[in-house]
Amino acid sequence: MTYLSKMIEELVELLSIEQYGIRGVLSGERLLISGLKEGSLNAYIYDGSKLTKLNRASINGVAWAKYDVSKAIIYRDTARGREQYLLYAVDPDKPEEEEQLPGVKPARLLGVAYDEEKVVFSSADMKGSYISVYSDGKVEKVLTYLGFPVVSDVDDDLAAGIDLFSQSSGRYSLFYANLGTGEIENYIDPEGSITSIILSQSGSIIYAVEMNYGAELKELDIGTKKASKLKLPHSDLEKFKPMSFSWLGLTRDGRLVTIARKEGRSEIFLDGMRLEAPQGMHGSAVEWRGRLAVSHSNMNIPSRIIELPRDILLSGSIPDHVSGTLGKTYLIRVRSFDGEEVPTYILESNRATKPGPTVVLIHGGPFSEYANTWNIFAASMALLGFHVVMPNYRGSSGYGESWRLKIVGDPCGGELEDITKAAEWAKKSGLASRLYIVGYSYGGYMVMCSLTKKPGLYRAGVAGASVVDWEMMYELSDAALRKFVELISANKRELRLERSPIKYVNDLSDPLCIIHPQNDTRTPLKPILRFMELASERGKSFEAHISPDMGHSISKVEDLIKILLPAALFLVRMENKLSDI
Amino acid sequence: MTYLSKMIEELVELLSIEQYGIRGVLSGERLLISGLKEGSLNAYIYDGSKLTKLNRASINGVAWAKYDVSKAIIYRDTARGREQYLLYAVDPDKPEEEEQLPGVKPARLLGVAYDEEKVVFSSADMKGSYISVYSDGKVEKVLTYLGFPVVSDVDDDLAAGIDLFSQSSGRYSLFYANLGTGEIENYIDPEGSITSIILSQSGSIIYAVEMNYGAELKELDIGTKKASKLKLPHSDLEKFKPMSFSWLGLTRDGRLVTIARKEGRSEIFLDGMRLEAPQGMHGSAVEWRGRLAVSHSNMNIPSRIIELPRDILLSGSIPDHVSGTLGKTYLIRVRSFDGEEVPTYILESNRATKPGPTVVLIHGGPFSEYANTWNIFAASMALLGFHVVMPNYRGSSGYGESWRLKIVGDPCGGELEDITKAAEWAKKSGLASRLYIVGYSYGGYMVMCSLTKKPGLYRAGVAGASVVDWEMMYELSDAALRKFVELISANKRELRLERSPIKYVNDLSDPLCIIHPQNDTRTPLKPILRFMELASERGKSFEAHISPDMGHSISKVEDLIKILLPAALFLVRMENKLSDI
Repeated sequence: MTYLSKMIEELVELLSIEQYGIRGVLSGERLLISGLKEGSLNAYIYDGSKLTKLNRASINGVAWAKYDVSKAIIYRDTARGREQYLLYAVDPDKPEEEEQLPGVKPARLLGVAYDEEKVVFSSADMKGSYISVYSDGKVEKVLTYLGFPVVSDVDDDLAAGIDLFSQSSGRYSLFYANLGTGEIENYIDPEGSITSIILSQSGSIIYAVEMNYGAELKELDIGTKKASKLKLPHSDLEKFKPMSFSWLGLTRDGRLVTIARKEGRSEIFLDGMRLEAPQGMHGSAVEWRGRLAVSHSNMNIPSRIIELPRDILLSGSIPDHVSGTLGKTYLIRVRSFDGEEVPTYILESNRATKPGPTVVLIHGGPFSEYANTWNIFAASMALLGFHVVMPNYRGSSGYGESWRLKIVGDPCGGELEDITKAAEWAKKSGLASRLYIVGYSYGGYMVMCSLTKKPGLYRAGVAGASVVDWEMMYELSDAALRKFVELISANKRELRLERSPIKYVNDLSDPLCIIHPQNDTRTPLKPILRFMELASERGKSFEAHISPDMGHSISKVEDLIKILLPAALFLVRMENKLSDI
Repeated sequence: MTYLSKMIEELVELLSIEQYGIRGVLSGERLLISGLKEGSLNAYIYDGSKLTKLNRASINGVAWAKYDVSKAIIYRDTARGREQYLLYAVDPDKPEEEEQLPGVKPARLLGVAYDEEKVVFSSADMKGSYISVYSDGKVEKVLTYLGFPVVSDVDDDLAAGIDLFSQSSGRYSLFYANLGTGEIENYIDPEGSITSIILSQSGSIIYAVEMNYGAELKELDIGTKKASKLKLPHSDLEKFKPMSFSWLGLTRDGRLVTIARKEGRSEIFLDGMRLEAPQGMHGSAVEWRGRLAVSHSNMNIPSRIIELPRDILLSGSIPDHVSGTLGKTYLIRVRSFDGEEVPTYILESNRATKPGPTVVLIHGGPFSEYANTWNIFAASMALLGFHVVMPNYRGSSGYGESWRLKIVGDPCGGELEDITKAAEWAKKSGLASRLYIVGYSYGGYMVMCSLTKKPGLYRAGVAGASVVDWEMMYELSDAALRKFVELISANKRELRLERSPIKYVNDLSDPLCIIHPQNDTRTPLKPILRFMELASERGKSFEAHISPDMGHSISKVEDLIKILLPAALFLVRMENKLSDI
């Protein structure tokens, strides 16, 4: 078999590995599962032995089901990736009779929550952002809310969630709506960003706040509008000194389940008491048949479902010849230009020598993080024979509010230097021979910034779904996304122009592979086409792959292939691995 | 092995098969060979047993060597596919000492001829077309010549060639230049198009003329400027009733070697006497060691070198599991809308059922033809499991002057109807289940025309290096290419606008895969980017692959892969052959 066909076969095997997440418990103790399986994202119920698919056509998400609701609420894009979602209710006893919620129009969903009586969802269009209430077969109420509201819980007349981009400081706040009166309140914590909320059984809002050097739980009394530190019966959580929380949940009797994170790993706590669980990262947790079910992954294990402490309920299988390529993983701290330390994850490839070809992989967001979690991009690079360096550049979450907010008003600034330092570290440390840079979304933007601002540092770059023109992107964005662009650019047009790679197309000299979803409504295609036109006029070399029938978010194996196969072919060509053909 | 990786492995095997052509005989009876071998086009000498490579880096062409010249003249693009060629002389005894011809600037070459003393070449830039004479280490003379001159022979002070696009009728003429005085004469045959010339040993110009219903040989006395029908000692050629000539050559003693064509096959004649040779198509022929060496191919045999009648000198090997997929080939005539008959080649795939998925493959030019010759696009489609229908639509050469000229002033007109009828024939005849359309260059244009003008006829289309906007292409074209656009569009701007697919982007509804070389200077990328922008704005679905570091013409296996691999992946995806992943 040729190198090329072997590579593609293994890559497709890797991209096809099943992944599972928990989305609550439906009536009859049936675990609601979102699974990347059978080629796409689907909703399933799991009864302890059998997995039953709820949807026919592939979907884009499954709303969190509060205990014992009778139906699953799923959503599906109607516009080939343009993120115009419709909502559907599915009775798990009659999965063939999926019911589209009448009166709900296609829109970009920001958040969904529901109970037996109603579905509350937040959405955005070009004009604004909205919180809508569906019940009794119709949309009963549409509230306008300026910002980027992510509804995540509802109980009776109270709905609540996080507002991401309303504050010019970048601080996340929470909001809650009285669905009866239509009043919406916003609450900003004086100490930091509110990153998740849950409604307690007593009617208060429990929230996680991420501060400069740690995270904690608080409780907001919505009567007095006063928040206080949450007291928990056990102290393990406090001793853990979390940097952030990725999950707040409740047991049936109202005990608090939290997943707290630090340095790329997480621990699970029940009322503050640490529970034994496999190492890595945990997603959501729920009480099921008297025990806790939780999703778990790490850099070597795709997301699976376990019952604590370690009974595997659902798990994809990763072929030995693929998993064998994933080498050592570790977290290092790279000193940046200003003395700050950049927490950087490393995944070594067992197929690369040391030093060997190395991909500096850049996450999107920018408000997200590389952690000891399954990452299909990283695993793909390792499979292809590249070590992977994953810097949590300033702007990343998980390392405190001040680190995250350093990117506000300075895109293609300090964070680019952090990435550059991580790349230089890879060379100096003996890990990397040649350097490549690969990223998607904000990560693609960083690739464009790196190739135009740091020519010669990388052998080549792959820019997926990238930003090349903040101003044009701003003009094409809906109301919620505009909030994001305003935040990143400190609401300054000059900065949007100044920090756009299209302005520096002349400085491009390293090989560039552009990969872009055709119907991307977050980082739209139009600026990329303009970038290519300018680059061509100026004699710059690039290749480009515009992927049809998909948008920014990836929910099918086919979409993964559309993105990662051209990237893989480009990278191995750059490494001259195809010299035999 | 998955279907996908097996498919790719076989496709790469097919694209890597060696192909050979004859480019004359150097001193010492060394056959000069152009070979697509070792991944790219190269020049070789063949001494009867050993093949010796003359160039280091890959090249784009080898000039025809008149008997016993001491050096090979090769040319090489210097601008990553932008067709800015430099010329090099190589002494076959010192192949490492390739000498770039001093004073020759990079330019688009239209033709090259040389003898021991000088190199004459025609070229074009944005301002005009030129005939240049290089000798004694410098460019001695540059003559300006309005049109599209293709120099093909030189003897002493006389150089001559074909002028393709000077006549608004579309008729090809010949030109000859007195290199001493710098005078250039143009000669138009009253009966048809002059398609090839050779200088006779007596100083006349022997030429082939293609008329409405046949082709013949004539001789032009450049003293009297009178042409007369060429008398040959043997009458086989006349009896063959050729439709065109693809080769005129001489033996050492001045006998005329011609390759004459009819209905997609060719025969070789020596002074009018038919010589025995394998069936199919023959390229160029030369006397070598007292016998005739000729290149030969057919739809199942890649171009190889034989010594007449049938000793194989040089030949690529095609693996059995690949050649086994190439099925029956035959020529049919499809009745078009106006009663005209469209000669159409069929290549059946042994991997497709009948009816089965079928690709209507469209050749470029438009002035070229599908014949019983090796065609890598057709072979690839058959390998992938598609029957292949190849219409010689009006505008094709090989079927008479009137058929060829029907396209002048009517692009995306009658020829589109011919193609449509061929597609419909494929359905009606029981060959095709689903139809696809694939083309490159003018063929890509036909794909764009078909999808916008005949929506629903094809399951999907692949437009390679296509034309979408004649007017923008015209503005971006050099002087020689402008002549071509003027001819096709009858020099009318309105027609260029009217017949441009970009005007009909609204009518696009079938899946479209765009494949375009980034540095294409014939069908430039810019209009394609505009087309994609418009298509995206209007919610049209497409995928696109912009191939780096290559231009319109393909001279490397790597470039073939850049074009055919995305096309293959698209087609098999459309056929749902990847449903297992």
